Amino acid sequence: MLDFNANQDPTEALRATFRRHASGVSVITTVDEDNNPVGFTATSMTSLGATPPLVMFSVARGASSWNAISTAKFIAIHTLGEANVELAKRMAADHTQRFLGDDWQRGPENLPIFDCATSVLIGKVRDVLNIENNAVVICDVVSGALGTEDEALLYYQRAYRATGNTLA
Amino acid sequence: MLDFNANQDPTEALRATFRRHASGVSVITTVDEDNNPVGFTATSMTSLGATPPLVMFSVARGASSWNAISTAKFIAIHTLGEANVELAKRMAADHTQRFLGDDWQRGPENLPIFDCATSVLIGKVRDVLNIENNAVVICDVVSGALGTEDEALLYYQRAYRATGNTLA
Repeated sequence: MLDFNANQDPTEALRATFRRHASGVSVITTVDEDNNPVGFTATSMTSLGATPPLVMFSVARGASSWNAISTAKFIAIHTLGEANVELAKRMAADHTQRFLGDDWQRGPENLPIFDCATSVLIGKVRDVLNIENNAVVICDVVSGALGTEDEALLYYQRAYRATGNTLA
Repeated sequence: MLDFNANQDPTEALRATFRRHASGVSVITTVDEDNNPVGFTATSMTSLGATPPLVMFSVARGASSWNAISTAKFIAIHTLGEANVELAKRMAADHTQRFLGDDWQRGPENLPIFDCATSVLIGKVRDVLNIENNAVVICDVVSGALGTEDEALLYYQRAYRATGNTLA
């Protein structure tokens, strides 16, 4: 039987578990009230059903993007591929440097779009649920576009990784 | 500029996007009102902060596990490794066959625990949010245990996959 040590700190238990869990990588973007581009790298993005088409992701309420996300009407969700490692790193680093490049342009609803992503969904925010220091954002998908075809990018053990061989 | 075709069916847009997105694989278990084991393979499990330690996942409200999940007080969250492909497949197939093997036993709160997982968290259900045909389940982590060390298991392009090389 596994050792469920009742004296273990549950925060440490969670951290130990998530070192063994891999995630796909996305970039979420929106605009703030002055129409400036805002965004961040997310590892929590997932579908919440296809009929109706819904996506959700979480965001820390202390994040630089939080004010804009908390009041956003529309959001762009970019899935990333292996060629997008630099974008993933930039969108997780200094928030004042994230949109200095020329690799994005305005798309639907004036949202900042990185054309190099493997796909982009435009979501209309349905709900923002505050849960402790984080929030869960739920969006109805209104449209989408496919970008460059590439293998999906992973985040695992504090590094960006490629996907590996098929096991079954 | 990417082609955001306003005439595209948003359900199709979502499906096209998620074919380009990879996910880590978990198995969620609980017990029903008769104390029978219930569970399923999930690709939506994610952390919702470490202080306090919270995890969330989604479940289809039409799933065989839904009745038990919707009233559960405690839930076990197993992260899976490459060696757990057969478990991942079994827990996504015929629900009457999922607990016929001898690879599980009762753990904390009488929860069914697969010892072969790479780690297990015990979560106390904080909230179950119904959203269209799905629900988002939010749990406080109360304890955890590490299992066999193994590389994380992925689900990508309708197949179970290994993680690949480090890109950065």
